[in-house]
Amino acid sequence: MNGADRLCETLLANDIDVCFANPGTSEMHFVAALDRRPQMRCVLGLFEGVATGAADGYARMADKPAATLLHLGPGLANGLANLHNARRARTPMLNVVGDHATYFLKHDAPLTSDIESLARPMSQWVGYIGSAAEVEARTSEAYRAAMRMPGVATLILPADAAWGDVPSDRPPVRTTLPDLAAASTQAVRNAAETLRSQRRVALLLTGQALRAHALEIAGRIADATGARLLMQTSNGRVQRGAGRVVIGSVPYSVDAALEALHDVDAMIVVGAKVPVAFFAYPGKPGLLVREDCEIVDLARPGEDLVQALAHLADELGIKANTPVSVSPGFTDDATLPRGPLTDEAVAFTVARMLPEHAIVCDESITAGASFFRHSQHAAPHDYLRITGGAIGIGIPLAAGAAVACPDRKVVALQADGSGMYTVQGFWTQARENLDVVTIVFANRSYAILQGEMRNVGVEHFGSNAKRMLSIDEPTLDWVSMARGMGVDGGRATTVEEFRTLLEAALKQRGPFVIEAVV
Amino acid sequence: MNGADRLCETLLANDIDVCFANPGTSEMHFVAALDRRPQMRCVLGLFEGVATGAADGYARMADKPAATLLHLGPGLANGLANLHNARRARTPMLNVVGDHATYFLKHDAPLTSDIESLARPMSQWVGYIGSAAEVEARTSEAYRAAMRMPGVATLILPADAAWGDVPSDRPPVRTTLPDLAAASTQAVRNAAETLRSQRRVALLLTGQALRAHALEIAGRIADATGARLLMQTSNGRVQRGAGRVVIGSVPYSVDAALEALHDVDAMIVVGAKVPVAFFAYPGKPGLLVREDCEIVDLARPGEDLVQALAHLADELGIKANTPVSVSPGFTDDATLPRGPLTDEAVAFTVARMLPEHAIVCDESITAGASFFRHSQHAAPHDYLRITGGAIGIGIPLAAGAAVACPDRKVVALQADGSGMYTVQGFWTQARENLDVVTIVFANRSYAILQGEMRNVGVEHFGSNAKRMLSIDEPTLDWVSMARGMGVDGGRATTVEEFRTLLEAALKQRGPFVIEAVV
Repeated sequence: MNGADRLCETLLANDIDVCFANPGTSEMHFVAALDRRPQMRCVLGLFEGVATGAADGYARMADKPAATLLHLGPGLANGLANLHNARRARTPMLNVVGDHATYFLKHDAPLTSDIESLARPMSQWVGYIGSAAEVEARTSEAYRAAMRMPGVATLILPADAAWGDVPSDRPPVRTTLPDLAAASTQAVRNAAETLRSQRRVALLLTGQALRAHALEIAGRIADATGARLLMQTSNGRVQRGAGRVVIGSVPYSVDAALEALHDVDAMIVVGAKVPVAFFAYPGKPGLLVREDCEIVDLARPGEDLVQALAHLADELGIKANTPVSVSPGFTDDATLPRGPLTDEAVAFTVARMLPEHAIVCDESITAGASFFRHSQHAAPHDYLRITGGAIGIGIPLAAGAAVACPDRKVVALQADGSGMYTVQGFWTQARENLDVVTIVFANRSYAILQGEMRNVGVEHFGSNAKRMLSIDEPTLDWVSMARGMGVDGGRATTVEEFRTLLEAALKQRGPFVIEAVV
Repeated sequence: MNGADRLCETLLANDIDVCFANPGTSEMHFVAALDRRPQMRCVLGLFEGVATGAADGYARMADKPAATLLHLGPGLANGLANLHNARRARTPMLNVVGDHATYFLKHDAPLTSDIESLARPMSQWVGYIGSAAEVEARTSEAYRAAMRMPGVATLILPADAAWGDVPSDRPPVRTTLPDLAAASTQAVRNAAETLRSQRRVALLLTGQALRAHALEIAGRIADATGARLLMQTSNGRVQRGAGRVVIGSVPYSVDAALEALHDVDAMIVVGAKVPVAFFAYPGKPGLLVREDCEIVDLARPGEDLVQALAHLADELGIKANTPVSVSPGFTDDATLPRGPLTDEAVAFTVARMLPEHAIVCDESITAGASFFRHSQHAAPHDYLRITGGAIGIGIPLAAGAAVACPDRKVVALQADGSGMYTVQGFWTQARENLDVVTIVFANRSYAILQGEMRNVGVEHFGSNAKRMLSIDEPTLDWVSMARGMGVDGGRATTVEEFRTLLEAALKQRGPFVIEAVV
């Protein structure tokens, strides 16, 4: 058995059985080892950003990491933007990056680069496998880091560690995971005391605290104490819709966020980061809560967030079977809009037509901003969003979620500017026949940037600004691009056309693209 | 005047008047400053790898850097693979990477990352602009580094350095460039002595030594001494074809390279790297020359390679006006092949039909391997190749070369697997109406990797290997993808169809894609 075989065996022993891959020559022994193990599902992306974005979507839904297989520094570099998003989502992921043989690095061959320097900014953990004998231990460490940091673990596999002989042939041992650390008793008491005070308190949640069962506990706390439930602006996954506890999110825009958080005297954070602006603006604060807002840490990332909420409820004397306020679902008979298609009409229509237990992948940026509001009472669904602001995650994220949950419909809300970043992901959706309907908001501009340009005081765009902030001239034909990659699609310019296309797409299985001209 | 204005002025003072851009919010003040200067040509890429690859192609042809405008760590990350190629080509380039305002970094906002750690592996020079007052000096340093290292200079521009006031309003001073360092007299003498010895000597060239006038000097040396002329496997640009000095290149495959270099007793390197294998293979050497081959450094990268050759010729007593052996052009009346299209037929046909002074951008990998041989006596042309092995450069490289040389036809030879990496580049070709004909070798596989898989001893591919090394199922429709981005195209399955399409594409102006099904 060689090191590459050992790596595969160690992954499989830990139930990692999906590998999003884009291999090169230095990974050929690993490819050969994967080929000897048909129980490992290898999913090819035609660009590494597709592989890493899909691994993110997969793990958000499967609650376990996928492996990725990336080719040296440049292959890793191509995947970094989506690793950045995964790092911010704290998604467990295990990247295997091939490197030149250890003894070969001195030659500084054309593809040589400093892989660790590239990996570190976008990984919670980085490890180098010095030899075949080290493969099992290092892979086990990487798995533990991915599951318990939790986050992105990047393992560098030199070619000679892959092809070298492993001394022992005993099967790899399943990695023991330590229990999640518990929030401290003192933290629970502090949070309870804060909630019992007369101040206006918000609970800020993220991570596992946004799953339905955790939100029920948080909802009972809110019902009992009058605290507000909030989640970060960007989260990996939240379970919401009819029958689920309703939770708002911190707005993206600085002014709206300041307004929304102005009356918060104390904020209890549950695995979350205290809200800060996405960007600095001259004369505007970075911190979005009031300077005198008290921050109470209930639990930190890597701690057991769900248990922390349960302990907090206990401390407050709230029984586990207390009924909790949830979304009643849509209670009106709103008629769908008609006529020319708009962002708002798309968001409204998708929310109303969303199938039960759909997975919504949202990289609609400005265009789909109203979807979150419209879908508060939609059919119960999982909502996955771009987390790190690195655009180009939507198409791959949807692919990965669909690999993890083959029996659920994935509905991807996709801005056109961002969609172009990893448009190659459609091909993977076609090859794997993934059940994804992608709705492209074709506004033919970087609309968010046009707004930001006005924010810096430029009202009238000259030629250079127009050419950098618009993506018309020529118009992108999404149906043609998707068909070129084996995904069928249609174009809608009216609400009626959009609705007809969406109905058909939701009924069929397999990928479909709707270009919504808005 | 703010820092961003100062940056633009400093770039323009140094004749940098093209910016390949993909901006984000943190770069809005820079965008506004560019917008105030219509003399700066801003070219938008729909992905940062397009911007960096195009900047590489531009500078290879213009012999001066373009600027790029990249958005924070993830934007830089997306451009890194093509920066890797540019670094290996030693292409002068000046990247401007926006960062959060200096005082804002402490908030660790979603898009925060360690930009320096990402930049360093793929840049010859990295600098951080601490404030608006530093903009001119740092930009000047970056320009000098780009021109004189030469190579990739990456400048990190925090938002507050962009929007901050610059104390002085005097116009920026043009940066003084030191003369290129001269090769040492001793190095020239050593090289001459080597050439006068009875040993079999090769001159290994790269960089400026591959321009027509430098090759004439090298050719005279070869004619006079019997030395062999060789260039590196991968070079940024070489001027070749009819009327030019003929030069071979070190083969890519280890076995072929060992064979080709076996009889070389001494190698005089002119800005080049001693040949090493692209990858390590068990039991094969990394160094491609014999262990006892003497290496004689005539000139190092960053030294004046052309002058070094001229001094060497002087030292050997060769007169500057001595006639030199050059390619006579095609001397046969070879008829074009007929019938089903093959790699070989495409390469042969393109070589025979190549227009005078075309720029050939070659990322054909395995499929176009024979083009180099077939085009030895083609019409005079510039030949630009992928240099660092990071695939996804072809489409952007062609775009950048076309921006630099609007009066020359660009012929891009593109492998399909690599082409998908930065397929978004077609849109930039369409928007700028660039005169590029792209020939996609649609072999529907990572053919090079299938060969490498056999090299590691796997003859029969299982399902996983097939799924990772083939890109059929579904078949990519290049004509449909290109049209979706505003570039017209056609598909050829026979030599006759191919020839008809190529003839038409060469006659028209503007981008065109030919899918050559091989």
